[in-house]
Amino acid sequence: MRILVTGASGFVGRHAAAELVRMDAEVHVVTRNGASAFGICHHIDLLERDCAKLLLKAVRPDIVLHLAWCVAHGKFWTDPANLDWTGTTLALARAAADVGVRRFIGVGTCYEYDWPKTDDCKEFETPLARHTLYDTAKTSCRGLLEAYLEATSTAFVWARLFYLYGPGEDQRRLVANIARALAAGEDANCTLGTATRDYMHVRDAGAALAKTAVGTVRGVVNIGSGVGVRVAEIATILGQIARRPDLVHLGALPDRTDEPPRIVANVDRLRFEVGFQTKFDIVSGLGTTFEYWKRCATHAAN
Amino acid sequence: MRILVTGASGFVGRHAAAELVRMDAEVHVVTRNGASAFGICHHIDLLERDCAKLLLKAVRPDIVLHLAWCVAHGKFWTDPANLDWTGTTLALARAAADVGVRRFIGVGTCYEYDWPKTDDCKEFETPLARHTLYDTAKTSCRGLLEAYLEATSTAFVWARLFYLYGPGEDQRRLVANIARALAAGEDANCTLGTATRDYMHVRDAGAALAKTAVGTVRGVVNIGSGVGVRVAEIATILGQIARRPDLVHLGALPDRTDEPPRIVANVDRLRFEVGFQTKFDIVSGLGTTFEYWKRCATHAAN
Repeated sequence: MRILVTGASGFVGRHAAAELVRMDAEVHVVTRNGASAFGICHHIDLLERDCAKLLLKAVRPDIVLHLAWCVAHGKFWTDPANLDWTGTTLALARAAADVGVRRFIGVGTCYEYDWPKTDDCKEFETPLARHTLYDTAKTSCRGLLEAYLEATSTAFVWARLFYLYGPGEDQRRLVANIARALAAGEDANCTLGTATRDYMHVRDAGAALAKTAVGTVRGVVNIGSGVGVRVAEIATILGQIARRPDLVHLGALPDRTDEPPRIVANVDRLRFEVGFQTKFDIVSGLGTTFEYWKRCATHAAN
Repeated sequence: MRILVTGASGFVGRHAAAELVRMDAEVHVVTRNGASAFGICHHIDLLERDCAKLLLKAVRPDIVLHLAWCVAHGKFWTDPANLDWTGTTLALARAAADVGVRRFIGVGTCYEYDWPKTDDCKEFETPLARHTLYDTAKTSCRGLLEAYLEATSTAFVWARLFYLYGPGEDQRRLVANIARALAAGEDANCTLGTATRDYMHVRDAGAALAKTAVGTVRGVVNIGSGVGVRVAEIATILGQIARRPDLVHLGALPDRTDEPPRIVANVDRLRFEVGFQTKFDIVSGLGTTFEYWKRCATHAAN
């Protein structure tokens, strides 16, 4: 089985590619800027014209797992590059269908949903809504790929990622930010953190994507833990793991007024149709994350 | 006022460009394959990489009226080129915003609506639905352009075309097909034709697009006549104009089972916000169409 993974040097892409290598797949990865990743590397820029077409012709994979997108922290919500990645994703899917790829897995986001106030997000029941340019682009891609690929012999899968965390995350993001501060013995200033989110360990997310890619499931699949956790709990648990609960200051930062109260995945499809089980719960997952930042702090000190 | 019109050699694009020239605008047109159009011609292929960007930098128009799309009769509903045109449209809009274009007018379709059984389609009230790859691509473009352009200084307009007819139409399409047959003295075999549609004369449609483009209206605007007419009436009127009602055979062709009963535009925005009035009613419009085919038949006979 030959599989092409785009965005394979990214936060979750690295773990997806590694898991596919573990499964004995022939893994081809696309990375930019010479970044390394597990598998046979193709150092190309997918945004270049005809790049997708030539790559697909050269590799002729059975499966495409397309993770590449603009992901610059803070910027990606409104980045005009969302338009470019939409075009590139459509070109990639066309090229995939043209060379007879069996499965095309695109990656969406929990931001596509119109989040229910008290319920979990379900793939075929929860209505969708537009929040930002990012999720609008993802929703557009999904609709177009679905309509296009159903007339081809290429099966379409749309993996909707929820919240991720784990070693290697951008330190400006919530979990990494708190874990880094605590590992360095610094104050961790937080909001009240009453919002409930579905946080999945990045290694679980990578493995879930890999299993979804090589399986038989079609259509939209939520990639999440299925467990809601309050942001305050994350900070509190990290304080306990670090044995410095005194450094955690809930309420030190103002809450955002427009935060949806709950974003949690219903993971019935992932569990029962893909057959995936998470390895980490929030406590063990935050444990590996804290250890990572502790090592970084030690390295920096030496 | 400088305006760039893409697809300016097309069925409706020709009339839009001509009307803009009449308005004393400096009209730049994009055409492929050396086709002619009114205005300063740029013979380029927008699907080529960086073409949109370079063109916009070269022309620096105040307004972009983007009509180009894949329109091959019968094929365009499912044409994979819909994906390419989506990408090109997004690139064009990005390039337009980057050079400070004041208004960007994209063109949609009545197929974006979930047609009400008895009511007209209203821009902000009628729900949308996916029917084909074509309307899915158009809907995706609209959503993305709306989300993207609202963060720029470029105003966004989305002109939804309903049914068009008139001189020069592809003769495989309904009105042209009947008019051509009658002009040639041949039998015109029709369905029972009970479905109601909004047919707008192509010259009116071109003028409506031109007026919408140079105006101040923003967001979605239906481009239609606002008048529903049964397909059977069109055939009957053409039979009367041709003075050969005996050649019109309603019910000679089987009706499609999946035809929506009614697709008619609510044109309040076009009438009161754009300030546009149609010049043709269905009888005078079909008159010009029949004359066109009569001339074609005479030419062919000579």
